[in-house]
Amino acid sequence: MLARPIITLTTDYGLKDSFVGLMKGVILGINPDANIIDISHNIGRHNIYEASQVIAMSYKYFPSATIHVSVVDPGVGGARRPILVITENHYFIGPDNGIFTPIFERQSNFFKVLHLNSSHYFLPSEGATFHGRDIFSPIAAWLSRGVDSSKFGEPITDYQTISLPTPLLSDGNTISGEVVSSDNFGNTITNITVDILSKLAPVEPKDKFKIIYKDKAISFLNYYAEAEDNALSATINGFGHLELFVNKKNAFQMFDMNIGDTVTVTYVN
Amino acid sequence: MLARPIITLTTDYGLKDSFVGLMKGVILGINPDANIIDISHNIGRHNIYEASQVIAMSYKYFPSATIHVSVVDPGVGGARRPILVITENHYFIGPDNGIFTPIFERQSNFFKVLHLNSSHYFLPSEGATFHGRDIFSPIAAWLSRGVDSSKFGEPITDYQTISLPTPLLSDGNTISGEVVSSDNFGNTITNITVDILSKLAPVEPKDKFKIIYKDKAISFLNYYAEAEDNALSATINGFGHLELFVNKKNAFQMFDMNIGDTVTVTYVN
Amino acid sequence: MLARPIITLTTDYGLKDSFVGLMKGVILGINPDANIIDISHNIGRHNIYEASQVIAMSYKYFPSATIHVSVVDPGVGGARRPILVITENHYFIGPDNGIFTPIFERQSNFFKVLHLNSSHYFLPSEGATFHGRDIFSPIAAWLSRGVDSSKFGEPITDYQTISLPTPLLSDGNTISGEVVSSDNFGNTITNITVDILSKLAPVEPKDKFKIIYKDKAISFLNYYAEAEDNALSATINGFGHLELFVNKKNAFQMFDMNIGDTVTVTYVN
Repeated sequence: MLARPIITLTTDYGLKDSFVGLMKGVILGINPDANIIDISHNIGRHNIYEASQVIAMSYKYFPSATIHVSVVDPGVGGARRPILVITENHYFIGPDNGIFTPIFERQSNFFKVLHLNSSHYFLPSEGATFHGRDIFSPIAAWLSRGVDSSKFGEPITDYQTISLPTPLLSDGNTISGEVVSSDNFGNTITNITVDILSKLAPVEPKDKFKIIYKDKAISFLNYYAEAEDNALSATINGFGHLELFVNKKNAFQMFDMNIGDTVTVTYVN
Repeated sequence: MLARPIITLTTDYGLKDSFVGLMKGVILGINPDANIIDISHNIGRHNIYEASQVIAMSYKYFPSATIHVSVVDPGVGGARRPILVITENHYFIGPDNGIFTPIFERQSNFFKVLHLNSSHYFLPSEGATFHGRDIFSPIAAWLSRGVDSSKFGEPITDYQTISLPTPLLSDGNTISGEVVSSDNFGNTITNITVDILSKLAPVEPKDKFKIIYKDKAISFLNYYAEAEDNALSATINGFGHLELFVNKKNAFQMFDMNIGDTVTVTYVN
Repeated sequence: MLARPIITLTTDYGLKDSFVGLMKGVILGINPDANIIDISHNIGRHNIYEASQVIAMSYKYFPSATIHVSVVDPGVGGARRPILVITENHYFIGPDNGIFTPIFERQSNFFKVLHLNSSHYFLPSEGATFHGRDIFSPIAAWLSRGVDSSKFGEPITDYQTISLPTPLLSDGNTISGEVVSSDNFGNTITNITVDILSKLAPVEPKDKFKIIYKDKAISFLNYYAEAEDNALSATINGFGHLELFVNKKNAFQMFDMNIGDTVTVTYVN
């Protein structure tokens, strides 16, 4: 453990209510040395898929032993279980609703999952609407203090997963992927990665790849400012994903894009 | 004091301007060990009542000796006094405009109030528009360093309060309360608490309580996912308040609700 | 260096994506003792001028040796250089696109600028879209650990600047300035400062100054609550700037204001 163990928070709680602040209060009441870092509290309400993508792209940029608390939890208070996922280097705490699917599906497949049912570690509470504060925060805080994870619950193997879209390879030279998110700038992220592209061919030179969105060909560039004004273009973003963009403009809005839209890449030898 | 004393911030400053960041800069310049936690900076502009509710529901989730700085301050720079409220376990710093009314009205009635007039603890400043940075932050920081609170000003007893809506009991079996806020999910919080309900009868079984909003009866459930789709329902939320909701939908918008709307609960034996 | 060196962040990344959280993850991976403080992540997208104003008004409220990371970076990945600006008391890290112009133009003119080209301090990354995470954060973190700044790159003198509007003095008694920003409350900030006004005459009594906006005279007051209801008024704000406001209302919207609008102040003896 670090002298100041890191706990990250990813939720759909928003930044108007006191929900996030209270999670921090509860954590610091248990472990005053915790270093609590916000990843996002503006995940779309109840959007488990969106949260799963944010977690998948984020966790690896944090040091070993970081504890990631992720709460998009429409089933709060009902039958869905609270879980702790332990991998080689990271801990993940949240509801068992598929939010951690990308962690389960990583290439490295070492992990274990605990059903958090040792309720004496929970915060006593009257209602059943706020497990972010009452279950996930205290478990994260006790874990960050060094309590052995086996004390929090029982191992399970029937954890829930959600279906994640996977790019398809066809004709040996075409990859068919889809739009999975857009960012603050209206840049549009696809599920086509450098790793997948490199199954077709080395990613340089880029002009060997023909990218199609809504029947139009898109230039494949090295960085944003290379693009022609107002032209939909593509680049490899900082997460190794193919991203569609318009330089200094909102591509997602300008081209009326939607999550799930098809993007294809063909290698032209 | 903790090794890293906690200072919370609740304001209507928003998250675009640098106001909140500057409060933190000033605090850390005085006490580099302060652990500054945001509760909310998106309180409605000038909405003293809303801030008072957020503070009332939040402070108890923080450790003893936490210092809560709360700044919704339309009277900044004028005659209204800056104050420090000291209770058994917490400190509250902000303007004397009623923002701390729920603290004054708690069942436990031990507290004292100081008028902060020792201006040598303030940050010198040219204008009179930003006491969050110039008065409240430095006082919080010096207090967190262990300066005795009596040095900051004089005790007063004529502090300001605002009127808070109180549920009414009638006929010995009906409570008439009102909507006091809505949250990020459009869940609608009332001022009817478990404590008040239990004056009628034990809160279980819930079907002994008939809840009425806009002349319609509402199911009283244990958690969100129990509700029928699109049906306005009620539950006890994590703060012990009766809350109206629609599962995975925005009840406040769907049912055209307003702060101040009446909600009644009748015990049917 | 402080035991917990302060690194501030100012970006146009917004608070929905994980961008800001990842910068913090990278920093803490290099320096677990860093104390990371958000100034704003809601700078207008690609708005270098707005960022420059926020930085100019903010940095001096932080302790000596604070490291300010400022990323509004439409040219990311292209020819624009990453730079480190060193002044007597502060460090500034960001793109060489003029974002630090107000630092270069301060009265105290000691500073040096380094082109950050020691790429072994960078985070290896596949794409070229996220230098906030891959270059600026790691450099800030290594600097906060005490690595000598000379190791990060070469001194340059041909850094970029942007044009900043300057108030004009005419007839020996009139200052013509302009609107430079508006804040969360719709208060409208001008580039006319107390320092500039005091070149005409001492700023008290205020009624010796005639302030004109859109051909109408505006009362010059000491604080917000002094103003008549709905009247456009002026005061000196907490940053020493002349600010136009309507008490408890949004002046910027009510009076259809725009950045760049002219405001004049005449001293009437």
